[in-house]
Amino acid sequence: MIGVRFSLYPMTDAFVPVILDAVQGLDRLGLEVEVDDVSTCLMGEEPQLFEALRVAFGRAARTGTHVVMVASFSAGCPGEPEGDVCAPRHVTLAELAQEQWTDNWVAEAYDLPEQVACQFALYPLGIEHYMDVIYREIGGTKEAPVRSRGRHFATHLAGDGGAVFDALRTAFRNTRRDAAHVVMTATISANSPSAPTA
Amino acid sequence: MIGVRFSLYPMTDAFVPVILDAVQGLDRLGLEVEVDDVSTCLMGEEPQLFEALRVAFGRAARTGTHVVMVASFSAGCPGEPEGDVCAPRHVTLAELAQEQWTDNWVAEAYDLPEQVACQFALYPLGIEHYMDVIYREIGGTKEAPVRSRGRHFATHLAGDGGAVFDALRTAFRNTRRDAAHVVMTATISANSPSAPTA
Repeated sequence: MIGVRFSLYPMTDAFVPVILDAVQGLDRLGLEVEVDDVSTCLMGEEPQLFEALRVAFGRAARTGTHVVMVASFSAGCPGEPEGDVCAPRHVTLAELAQEQWTDNWVAEAYDLPEQVACQFALYPLGIEHYMDVIYREIGGTKEAPVRSRGRHFATHLAGDGGAVFDALRTAFRNTRRDAAHVVMTATISANSPSAPTA
Repeated sequence: MIGVRFSLYPMTDAFVPVILDAVQGLDRLGLEVEVDDVSTCLMGEEPQLFEALRVAFGRAARTGTHVVMVASFSAGCPGEPEGDVCAPRHVTLAELAQEQWTDNWVAEAYDLPEQVACQFALYPLGIEHYMDVIYREIGGTKEAPVRSRGRHFATHLAGDGGAVFDALRTAFRNTRRDAAHVVMTATISANSPSAPTA
């Protein structure tokens, strides 16, 4: 069981309907959904977390408004407030090989902007060699079909929306091989009036 | 040297001037400022980082629009892309005692909303006992003059804007005693149409 806490920020006076339309029905993807006044938390299986974020981001982006999604993915977090929701779990390579890398998703999950900008960071917790893991995954994004550039405290990705989400998914998945508790933060932006910087 | 990467999300058609007005002149607070199309990175001394974020958030919130600030604070990060900007540094208790806990800030840094909502998370990296540190600092927020509630993957704070920023600053500062490399993420929301949930 892993989860993601995310928010959508549509930069428009009509932000309320954009958000509500974007997250409508995400619980039907097999996820537990908790909403509060700051963010939405999704818990469930890994493919559906990414499916849900792609659906929500795509819907908001298709309104044409400048929209940003900020997400914190978490796997293996101990100490959850409502009990053993996310028991620490060290995913072995063998388990990952068996884990389905499915993207047999609803059609909306593939309807993403042709250009997005993203900044993400990985935090493998509780291990001393965490920087090696981070460097490896940053290197991985440079092999992916996205533009990847180092920034202070983050890696900046740009390119096709689907490719960027795939790069995030790959980095998060790989890092779970190395640490029982992994957090990944990602900021994904579409329709920005600012010129791309990566 | 520590830093923070942040973005402001004003939920209005006029988001561009709100953002530009909010960040105008932050470099005059003695910080290095880097801007790209996703976020703004500030590097400098700890008091000025918080001063700058408070100034920017307060300005945006005073427009009355629903505005959210998302920030990732980082101290002691190794492996920065442009060299030894943030050399790992283990801050000892003695050093912290000498470090100025100043808030002799510009007047705007105190002009914050009476009610904000916040979700934050601490990531002390490279140490095995990181959860003990996190639990301690979550406990600290329950002693602070804010409402504090556990959430999946985050702690939810609500209350006076200045008190919430102070609680964040305290948690980040204390955690730097325990780990050479510390990241803290915070989402701070004002003027939301949603009812408070903490």
